[in-house]
Amino acid sequence: MARKVEVADLVDRARERQPRAVARLISLVEDASPQLREVAAALAPFTGRAQVVGLTGSPGVGKSTTTSALVAAYRAQGKRVGVLAVDPSSPFSGGALLGDRVRMQDHATDPDVFIRSMATRGHLGGMAWATPQALRVLDAAGFDVVLIETVGVGQSEVDVVALADTTLVLLAPGMGDGIQAAKAGILEIADVFVVNKADRDGADTTARELKYMISLGRREIRGASWRQPIVKTVAARGEGVGEVVEAIDAHRAWTADHGEFEHRRALRARTEIEAIAVETLRSRLGDLHGGDALDRLAKRVMAGDLDPYAAADSLIEGVQRD
Amino acid sequence: MARKVEVADLVDRARERQPRAVARLISLVEDASPQLREVAAALAPFTGRAQVVGLTGSPGVGKSTTTSALVAAYRAQGKRVGVLAVDPSSPFSGGALLGDRVRMQDHATDPDVFIRSMATRGHLGGMAWATPQALRVLDAAGFDVVLIETVGVGQSEVDVVALADTTLVLLAPGMGDGIQAAKAGILEIADVFVVNKADRDGADTTARELKYMISLGRREIRGASWRQPIVKTVAARGEGVGEVVEAIDAHRAWTADHGEFEHRRALRARTEIEAIAVETLRSRLGDLHGGDALDRLAKRVMAGDLDPYAAADSLIEGVQRD
Repeated sequence: MARKVEVADLVDRARERQPRAVARLISLVEDASPQLREVAAALAPFTGRAQVVGLTGSPGVGKSTTTSALVAAYRAQGKRVGVLAVDPSSPFSGGALLGDRVRMQDHATDPDVFIRSMATRGHLGGMAWATPQALRVLDAAGFDVVLIETVGVGQSEVDVVALADTTLVLLAPGMGDGIQAAKAGILEIADVFVVNKADRDGADTTARELKYMISLGRREIRGASWRQPIVKTVAARGEGVGEVVEAIDAHRAWTADHGEFEHRRALRARTEIEAIAVETLRSRLGDLHGGDALDRLAKRVMAGDLDPYAAADSLIEGVQRD
Repeated sequence: MARKVEVADLVDRARERQPRAVARLISLVEDASPQLREVAAALAPFTGRAQVVGLTGSPGVGKSTTTSALVAAYRAQGKRVGVLAVDPSSPFSGGALLGDRVRMQDHATDPDVFIRSMATRGHLGGMAWATPQALRVLDAAGFDVVLIETVGVGQSEVDVVALADTTLVLLAPGMGDGIQAAKAGILEIADVFVVNKADRDGADTTARELKYMISLGRREIRGASWRQPIVKTVAARGEGVGEVVEAIDAHRAWTADHGEFEHRRALRARTEIEAIAVETLRSRLGDLHGGDALDRLAKRVMAGDLDPYAAADSLIEGVQRD
């Protein structure tokens, strides 16, 4: 049997809602297979339609439970939903508490829900590379909404924001999140705040602190200002999830009216193109002189007879000569 | 007055222990000034001597207090100590609790201690770029030990590991750190574990859990195995800090004996050269056609008539023609 996959056929089948074809396409783009470029080209005409929602927050705030509840809410609207879990601690990635697994399995048998963990590759760099490609597959396969769940720390937040039309930041009472949020710059990336586990003590305090911080740091976009809503939820019981969906829709409408939607989409495309170009150049740097060039330069830098800038210049010259 | 700094003169003065010259050199490399390459070249012959120790851990475990206590311990040995705080929540970066500030100020008047926050640039990318350069300045200026403190999440950990000869991972009782550590892959990056706030309830449990996890995930390096020690401290009172220094020294000796020290230093040099080369190429990508090329390609990708890989190829061709 021929090993070569018929890409056009796979894309057709993915667009006919065959989960296996979707999974196969994601694997092809994730693994940077030789057919990656062929897949990317075949997907391009069908992309740009899915609504992309990012969810981020510290471990323990209930991201996966909220994701699961949002899937149910969108399914109730008849929408097809894709989930990309870019979070090594997510139950979607295998580290499940039993309750989460059961909730997730509600959706596992639904052909109009597709859940994929992007965390199995084990390192953030790999996820940052693979996630936009997986998003393009789900988008082309006709999923109306794609939820991207990520652990709320550092670079992974930034990456989610770059991909999402709307970013939810989740907090929970009593985790000192209010202060942490301000420090980590989470205020700036949130389009909608969700205070989950709102049946617990301290939920009102968390919401109040958040409201105060928002009032200090209001964002202006093209002269207008999006007022970041704070929605209280008990995602495990589905409470408040309808309001989260409404808040997402309101944000989507607002961004469309203010040119922000197009702006974010353009930024997403730019970021993706640039990341691919940089990675391509990086791998060429590594390949120079049979992969030896970098090692030889590193030895000279260690010995102190070359500085790293001069070494980098010499490496780049090699790429340009090729 | 001429604005051009006499780099050779600055390097001489930094090597004569003048803190202002050290600070000025770090500013020059941080700001990617036109003289950056001149500075890097002038520093190169004097680098590679400092012992580099990374400290990482979740907010609240006492990283800054431990850093401060380690500074005192190394000073008692007569060593000159540099500190780079790559942590937006560090008191060294301005977000101080009063107690931490006081502790830090003990060192602020000591000419053989140099403390620099790398977090003022506000984004991780910037810190990742500037920190190795600042390290080279401190190294060339003759600091015997450089402590790099970073918030223990995601990419910043990885960056510390890439720079450090020895990496300390700090935990504290009752923060669920045991489980978090395992999830976040912190086990793999630690050379020495420090359980700080060991006078609190749960310290023994944390240490025991950690010990169990270490027993499951023992690392082998070239056939030999470094047994990650667990040191209990109350850094605020200086308790256990001597043992931390001993553990660092033991690790240093072990890595030297097993070729791991050279291996890490080579990796550091490689990483640094590659990062500079990639950033240089990235900025060339951004500059193409007066900065317009990426925007035009992004529009075509958004419209679905080009895929991001084809767009990246076209961007790269532009760089190579230049």
